[in-house]
Amino acid sequence: VASCLRTTDLDSNLNCDIFLCLVGQSSFSLRSHTCGELCSSHVDEEVTLCGWIQYLRQDLFVILRDFSGLVQILIPQDESKSELKNAFLGLTVESVIMVKGRVRCRPEGQENKKMSTGEIEVCAESMEVLNTCRKLPFEIKEFVKKSEALRMQYRYLDLRSPRMQYNLRLRSQMVMKMREYLCNLHRFVDVETPTLFKRTPGGAKEFVVPSGDPGKFYSLPQSPQQFKQLLMVAGIDRYFQLARCYRDEGSKPDRQPEFTQVDIEISFVDQAGVMSLIEGLVHYSWPEDKGQINVPFPSMTYEEAIRDYGVDKPDTRFGMKLVDVTTAFQESQIEFIKDALLKPSGCIQAICVPEGTVRTESGDSHSYVPTPQLNLQRSQCSLISKQINLFKQLFLMAQANAGDLIFITAGPRENVVCRPLLGKLRLQCVELLESYGVPVRDPSVFHFLWVVDFPLFLPKEDNPEMLEAAHHPFTAPVPEDAHLLYTQPRKVRGQHYDLVLNGCEVGGGSIRIHNASQQLYVLDTILKEDPSLLSHLLEALDSGAPPHGGIALGLDRLVSIIVGAPSIRDIIAFPKSFRGHDLMSRAPDFVSEEDLKPYHISVVWPSADIEGQQDNSNKPSDLTGRPFR
Amino acid sequence: VASCLRTTDLDSNLNCDIFLCLVGQSSFSLRSHTCGELCSSHVDEEVTLCGWIQYLRQDLFVILRDFSGLVQILIPQDESKSELKNAFLGLTVESVIMVKGRVRCRPEGQENKKMSTGEIEVCAESMEVLNTCRKLPFEIKEFVKKSEALRMQYRYLDLRSPRMQYNLRLRSQMVMKMREYLCNLHRFVDVETPTLFKRTPGGAKEFVVPSGDPGKFYSLPQSPQQFKQLLMVAGIDRYFQLARCYRDEGSKPDRQPEFTQVDIEISFVDQAGVMSLIEGLVHYSWPEDKGQINVPFPSMTYEEAIRDYGVDKPDTRFGMKLVDVTTAFQESQIEFIKDALLKPSGCIQAICVPEGTVRTESGDSHSYVPTPQLNLQRSQCSLISKQINLFKQLFLMAQANAGDLIFITAGPRENVVCRPLLGKLRLQCVELLESYGVPVRDPSVFHFLWVVDFPLFLPKEDNPEMLEAAHHPFTAPVPEDAHLLYTQPRKVRGQHYDLVLNGCEVGGGSIRIHNASQQLYVLDTILKEDPSLLSHLLEALDSGAPPHGGIALGLDRLVSIIVGAPSIRDIIAFPKSFRGHDLMSRAPDFVSEEDLKPYHISVVWPSADIEGQQDNSNKPSDLTGRPFR
Repeated sequence: VASCLRTTDLDSNLNCDIFLCLVGQSSFSLRSHTCGELCSSHVDEEVTLCGWIQYLRQDLFVILRDFSGLVQILIPQDESKSELKNAFLGLTVESVIMVKGRVRCRPEGQENKKMSTGEIEVCAESMEVLNTCRKLPFEIKEFVKKSEALRMQYRYLDLRSPRMQYNLRLRSQMVMKMREYLCNLHRFVDVETPTLFKRTPGGAKEFVVPSGDPGKFYSLPQSPQQFKQLLMVAGIDRYFQLARCYRDEGSKPDRQPEFTQVDIEISFVDQAGVMSLIEGLVHYSWPEDKGQINVPFPSMTYEEAIRDYGVDKPDTRFGMKLVDVTTAFQESQIEFIKDALLKPSGCIQAICVPEGTVRTESGDSHSYVPTPQLNLQRSQCSLISKQINLFKQLFLMAQANAGDLIFITAGPRENVVCRPLLGKLRLQCVELLESYGVPVRDPSVFHFLWVVDFPLFLPKEDNPEMLEAAHHPFTAPVPEDAHLLYTQPRKVRGQHYDLVLNGCEVGGGSIRIHNASQQLYVLDTILKEDPSLLSHLLEALDSGAPPHGGIALGLDRLVSIIVGAPSIRDIIAFPKSFRGHDLMSRAPDFVSEEDLKPYHISVVWPSADIEGQQDNSNKPSDLTGRPFR
Repeated sequence: VASCLRTTDLDSNLNCDIFLCLVGQSSFSLRSHTCGELCSSHVDEEVTLCGWIQYLRQDLFVILRDFSGLVQILIPQDESKSELKNAFLGLTVESVIMVKGRVRCRPEGQENKKMSTGEIEVCAESMEVLNTCRKLPFEIKEFVKKSEALRMQYRYLDLRSPRMQYNLRLRSQMVMKMREYLCNLHRFVDVETPTLFKRTPGGAKEFVVPSGDPGKFYSLPQSPQQFKQLLMVAGIDRYFQLARCYRDEGSKPDRQPEFTQVDIEISFVDQAGVMSLIEGLVHYSWPEDKGQINVPFPSMTYEEAIRDYGVDKPDTRFGMKLVDVTTAFQESQIEFIKDALLKPSGCIQAICVPEGTVRTESGDSHSYVPTPQLNLQRSQCSLISKQINLFKQLFLMAQANAGDLIFITAGPRENVVCRPLLGKLRLQCVELLESYGVPVRDPSVFHFLWVVDFPLFLPKEDNPEMLEAAHHPFTAPVPEDAHLLYTQPRKVRGQHYDLVLNGCEVGGGSIRIHNASQQLYVLDTILKEDPSLLSHLLEALDSGAPPHGGIALGLDRLVSIIVGAPSIRDIIAFPKSFRGHDLMSRAPDFVSEEDLKPYHISVVWPSADIEGQQDNSNKPSDLTGRPFR
């Protein structure tokens, strides 16, 4: 089977190759061949094809399409076959037919090099209309631009496009390779875990599902975290699952209320083991048409990532790293810099945007400044123009050349503004440069990166005296920091690793706490959470839990980066709109009070809200985007 | 990889073999080998093992267990290693350790032939306690009988049993083989479809999920039926998915609120094509340790199944078929028989239970009669004792011998009592015989069977003048019956096929209607359903839908029959109780009114029921089983 791989163009308009195995793709089928597989080696063969009418040309040809590509059908022109000819000429675009005919070489000079089947054509001998297309809200052509809403409403037509066919097939093939790697090569066990589960403490983003028990609800899990750990306690040793996860995030752009993660857990493993496993997994499942990737992936500590890129998921495809230029400003009299340096651990950070003052098209240097998009605070960030002589040292430290643009920020070294602000600026600058046609990042390049040694706890945003888990409360401390748990928990690093691809987090995991008393201490003493809500997990840790760790890869995000899709919606067959609606079937929809009775719930209509629940009154309506009153 | 298969006993107590690939099962791990893989070829090797303490023996041995089996560890006895010895002796059962040591042959005469590693032992050189087991509600031994509730509460311990390990691993391996067959050999595309969907018309068994839009709900689908058909319209050509499905059936025994089906759809196919595909799938994925199965599977029409077995999913592992014995009774004066034969199409049906009057253990013939269990209506079914001479002809027709038991029923040939009653009796007799130790069905035998040519519509139970879909409203008629749709819809057979294994329905599918006007006619005119609820599907059929068909296999049921599990709970990692509860985490659980606010719902407590909703007042409480008042 593996020996019959062949590259087939899906469409002459689209330069994407997909590997198709020709054995089996017409098994059990009314057709003998697919449209796209035909080539000169099939000449003189009698074939049966099934597909869609792409278009008719000059009353002479029908271009027939199936998932594998296009082929030219020659309509017979002799008088004796006028009935067949008329049947062809009566066809509407996107109607479905079955054609029997013989393959022949196209007459010399009529070959189409842009078409994978361009050397041949099929002389039709008979044709059956399998279904007539009567309704078509838009043409199935790549170059016909459709609105997102129209594409979603008629998703079954949108999916006919070569791009969407490619995306869904590549996703399926990648997932299959991942399974082969995990299941066949490394003996992982594919275990399904429940979707109807118990609400987790603080699970504000979890969908609820009313049950038949009055007042009791299931919850759709955000991840199978508890189950995967319990499977390790159960001795499953190696678990994986392509797990559907659910998160109710309202209308965050490019998020989906349901998404899929490659969920992995393994016993008797350390951090390096999980990282090697994942490198092998990505390498093994990497699509052949996307070039080679190198393993092992480079690794960076959280501290380095923040220091050099101002973010914990750096895009390492380009430079423009953050530089500490504090020493250059020791004598500076500039007000906001002086203020910053007076404070403990005050520092000045800079990034240098090469040729950043040269606007590619107009040469108008100042029109480039991205300030409006960035909503910068003047007190923290300032454009330093190159004519200020005082900054020679700065230019040296930032390795700036003429025409470059330097941004600086001033503030305490640890705070969450100074470096992260430059980190954001760095990304926005590169996007702006690229929008002006300056090539900075090669779109065919894939930079994987591990970020490690995260802090185990972070101060809570709304109450910095309290701590919250940086990853989740089950992450184990780095062994040499474990003793600090009891004295200086803020200094403890976690055995937590994030996988970053081209500046996006595509995976995250950790070695877990497998000691019940350590887990109880973290939950109870450090995080001040009610441990009784996780009593089953704590009990499990006390009944022979092996050391274990794992990871979850965001499949949708990973595939969308690989195929270069602008949105994860482009690699999901039936995605929801950004408001969580299915525009095709119009879900969610009203349900009668009668149908809700078995679940002991009733709808609280917004008008009732005003009466009884004032604190809800400023919540915007999901339909209009305005508050209810 | 495929060349290193080897049969390993999981446990000496359990005679089940599982195929394990030794390459990769210790990759990325702290261990060098698994416990169960060690054999005489490893003698003199230095190994690192990780596992659970099964038991300590004579202060001399530790039996260590991991998923692959058991191995004997020799505790060093010399004075110089007393610290190590004491560490071993202090271990509690089910604690987790890592042992380094050297493999050696057991001294002659001490081999254990019942143990796959029984020829060797490992001389411990060092040991690390990875986790101490402090709590154990029951022993992890097959012979220790646990209550179902206790097993479910401590599922993570229950899963350590060899039986559950075997079940979950076999399930995972079967699913992987299915994927290889579909994805690699026949180019199916694995497409994920949404779980948050729109409520289907009449979807009384669908869980609802409140959304952020007031009054609007998603629904958890009972199957991806609409999506799989839309994917065919979308030109995906071949779709499959291991699809999680949801059905709220309250507390039906051995049903789960969520279950998994192998969901398949294919374009340009006929019924024979789908059936061949599935035969190939089952054959390819069949576990090696369960013997060979033969394909193609035998096929039977619905009419034949009802005629010969009184049921549409016959257990063909044994005879005792229904026999039409009407002619023997033409002259009969027995009241209920005379009455039945006077009616149009009145008939007498019989089954003969070989040696049915001989109770195996006591020889007391009449104590065998299963009447109390069957709740028979005397007027329809009667025990005919062998001493009645009049029935010579009956005995001849039923091929009865001395000691056999004959049951007869009388009634109209078409009704739903006469034959189905005998069908049920047939199954209950064989269960009773087997409970008395009479072997009737070989537990190692697997009888697959296709049942075809189902009626497309059936009279509604509550209103026989109306019709309902026998399968679902998307099933296409048998081509030669299609014209009857418009004149005699009750006579139309559907292109619907059920896959039956040992008398259980393990799959069902159909060729679908791909013509919009035919689909509209079925929905609107025949079934009197509101077609506007399926307008997106009707529109899709009108925009170039290919002919297509598919099937769904019930994975849980299929695997449970293959492993001989008494319940589908035994092949699901974390099943719900028969009331839909997770006894480990105690889901479903209460959710605060505050947390429900974003979903615009509130709980209607049973006490409120009494005031406002009288029609609910007789509904039994799900907790107590008694009505609310």
